[in-house]
Amino acid sequence: MEPRRPRGTKDLLPEEAVKYGYVADVVRRVFESFGFDEAQTPALELWSVLTAKCGEEVERQIFKIEGGELGLRFDLTVGMARMVASNPTLPKPFKRYFISKAWRYEEPQSGRLREFWQADADIVGVASVEADAEVLAVAVECLRRLGLQDFEVRINNRKVLDALARLSGVPASKSLEAFRAIDKLDKVGVEGVRKELRLRGLEDQADKLLEYISLKGPVNSALGEVREALKGDEVGLQGLNEIEEIAELAELYGYLDELVLDLSLARGLDYYTGPIFELVVKGEEGKLGSVAGGGRYDNLIELLGGPPTPATGVSLGLDRLVEVLRRAGKLPSIKTKTQVFVASASDDVRGEALKVALKLRAEGVPCEVDLMSRRLDRQLKYADSKGVPYALIIGRRELEEGVYRLRDMAKREERLLNWDRLLEEVGGRGVSEGRG
Amino acid sequence: MEPRRPRGTKDLLPEEAVKYGYVADVVRRVFESFGFDEAQTPALELWSVLTAKCGEEVERQIFKIEGGELGLRFDLTVGMARMVASNPTLPKPFKRYFISKAWRYEEPQSGRLREFWQADADIVGVASVEADAEVLAVAVECLRRLGLQDFEVRINNRKVLDALARLSGVPASKSLEAFRAIDKLDKVGVEGVRKELRLRGLEDQADKLLEYISLKGPVNSALGEVREALKGDEVGLQGLNEIEEIAELAELYGYLDELVLDLSLARGLDYYTGPIFELVVKGEEGKLGSVAGGGRYDNLIELLGGPPTPATGVSLGLDRLVEVLRRAGKLPSIKTKTQVFVASASDDVRGEALKVALKLRAEGVPCEVDLMSRRLDRQLKYADSKGVPYALIIGRRELEEGVYRLRDMAKREERLLNWDRLLEEVGGRGVSEGRG
Repeated sequence: MEPRRPRGTKDLLPEEAVKYGYVADVVRRVFESFGFDEAQTPALELWSVLTAKCGEEVERQIFKIEGGELGLRFDLTVGMARMVASNPTLPKPFKRYFISKAWRYEEPQSGRLREFWQADADIVGVASVEADAEVLAVAVECLRRLGLQDFEVRINNRKVLDALARLSGVPASKSLEAFRAIDKLDKVGVEGVRKELRLRGLEDQADKLLEYISLKGPVNSALGEVREALKGDEVGLQGLNEIEEIAELAELYGYLDELVLDLSLARGLDYYTGPIFELVVKGEEGKLGSVAGGGRYDNLIELLGGPPTPATGVSLGLDRLVEVLRRAGKLPSIKTKTQVFVASASDDVRGEALKVALKLRAEGVPCEVDLMSRRLDRQLKYADSKGVPYALIIGRRELEEGVYRLRDMAKREERLLNWDRLLEEVGGRGVSEGRG
Repeated sequence: MEPRRPRGTKDLLPEEAVKYGYVADVVRRVFESFGFDEAQTPALELWSVLTAKCGEEVERQIFKIEGGELGLRFDLTVGMARMVASNPTLPKPFKRYFISKAWRYEEPQSGRLREFWQADADIVGVASVEADAEVLAVAVECLRRLGLQDFEVRINNRKVLDALARLSGVPASKSLEAFRAIDKLDKVGVEGVRKELRLRGLEDQADKLLEYISLKGPVNSALGEVREALKGDEVGLQGLNEIEEIAELAELYGYLDELVLDLSLARGLDYYTGPIFELVVKGEEGKLGSVAGGGRYDNLIELLGGPPTPATGVSLGLDRLVEVLRRAGKLPSIKTKTQVFVASASDDVRGEALKVALKLRAEGVPCEVDLMSRRLDRQLKYADSKGVPYALIIGRRELEEGVYRLRDMAKREERLLNWDRLLEEVGGRGVSEGRG
């Protein structure tokens, strides 16, 4: 038997898992700092829930469980909307975050994973753009806390896109198909989108639509031009006003300089109804595509059986974020959280080594003992290969003298310390509250 | 449309998610304190990997993806073994932990979830029982750190069970079936197991087998009796020796008093080869069944295509653990991690409230602002319903005087504080490193 893994899935070995853990921790702390509470939904959902408003392309990508009644969630939004629909008395706004996996049958050549990590923050029950501006502020703060400074927050509005489709002569029944075609612009280019539109019977409307969506620029300077084009279209102008209000709040939150109006931004899911957005890191490391996206979905909860409930949210793609941070050199170099390898200099001190390890653990210091009766040099080689920063070498003489021999693995230096100095060095709780 | 959830799955609303988060955090810290590194594998695995050595009963419980090639993992062990098999150069021992979900089609009446949380710690590459004793120490420490003191660590050994089956006349080809029947003792009782054995053509052997497995007691006193019964059976005696060595290490680790030899303990999975164990909380709250289980599986990694590699591990069932802790009154009563609701006394201070919230967040204090233009009393009612401990009421006068009006929501008391005293009260980083 050959140990194979399903296509499009990943193992995270310790060195990689610790990097994912770091990114997820930063994101979690930012979410919580904005008052979002964690809430979890299952990976499995009813097929009818998953497909209620995802659109035909995403529907084809859902992993279906044999029997046909269940599928694996393709994002974290639909399950949350279903949960809110079945708990209509939740206090509003309901601000929830969730960091977990989702699944889609992506084409292997797309370079996308079929099982991937997402980190979502959603605000349910707020109709005004104050909520959209806040979820964007949350996403911006995540990137900044991770050390990314140079990025764009691209914004558009489904109401504006609706108006542009109308002005281009796209029938209302075909507007969602037109948006799905536009959504591929980054991947397939202008001629690719034109072909997609032709396939959907929108050849005559393609030129005008492609001209409209070519506009992109800093929100405040670009809005005037679009406002002119949308004159008389009430819904479209309302969409523009929403973007303008978000820009005002963005100034308070401190991300106005990053905000870019991009009329070609469409987002691939059918459930969006208002402002939509994506965060893209600039420069070479950002070439992978957007690291976050989201938008307003005011009809989804009602569609899933709940009362009419406005909602908006943002989703960070953690796999891509880790990759961008790696390329930008912003990931921590730590290989393990284990601080100390408690080594035995001889076989007769193994019991003592175990006792010292238990004492260190009680002080909050993650440590490991030898379980394989290895010679000291082999123990140290192992500790080194795992990236453990310290070895505490337990020997007969040190035990008798009541001192601790601590080896700095990187510097290859050994020092004799008493217990308190040892804890100070390796970061025990006894010395500094909360560490370790 | 009615918002339904798949049978046997759970939503975790914030109040519940915060409890799961607490338990998972404690478990994670204990795992790390013993030098285990996180490593992750996908939820999806190849059908051939999942079914390589799970046994027919578990195989029937696996969620299969349409197409038949993939399934959802039924535990966290098989994926880890597959990962180790495909990464043969990993330094050994490879000590990994993983806290994530698994899936099984349980019967709805069983009261078990079909999508459930597990927390696993495994040691790969150590043939001696030092590894088994350590993973048990890890599980014991998890329970104690969670405030549980009164529990049993039940232990047995597949080698002993093999010998008992032999001595009862069970053919080697049927021993795994016999173990699966025995594994149901807690659920179906002695007569139920007898019926199971009969169904598997082991009627004649049932009496003797049931007599053997009826032995249960403190390890050190019970071992002698079993040793007598197994006289001459080398493999069986080796199994007993392993249990005895684990008991010696248990004394060092401090869980010898909890260690109970239970010959009826069989575990439901086919991949076990040596010591097996379960942790059961005593008293009314423990009646749900074991909160942890595990054992040695020395052949699984080789079977999945890797080199011969001994391995052992323990798995905590987090859903059951949360339930036991709830019944024991050991779960924290906190409803949210949000510390402060920054309320606006009037509409003209909303911008200022947002700025204060940003300052608090920069200090590491999780806080929320009003997004719905609500009157002050409605804002406070909302903060109360979410269980936020403090409200900071921003008013024109306080802004002018440079003071902060902090309301303790539980005591319904308000105080005027300066910024430093405010941070001290709500736990900002500026005051105490690492909190918030």
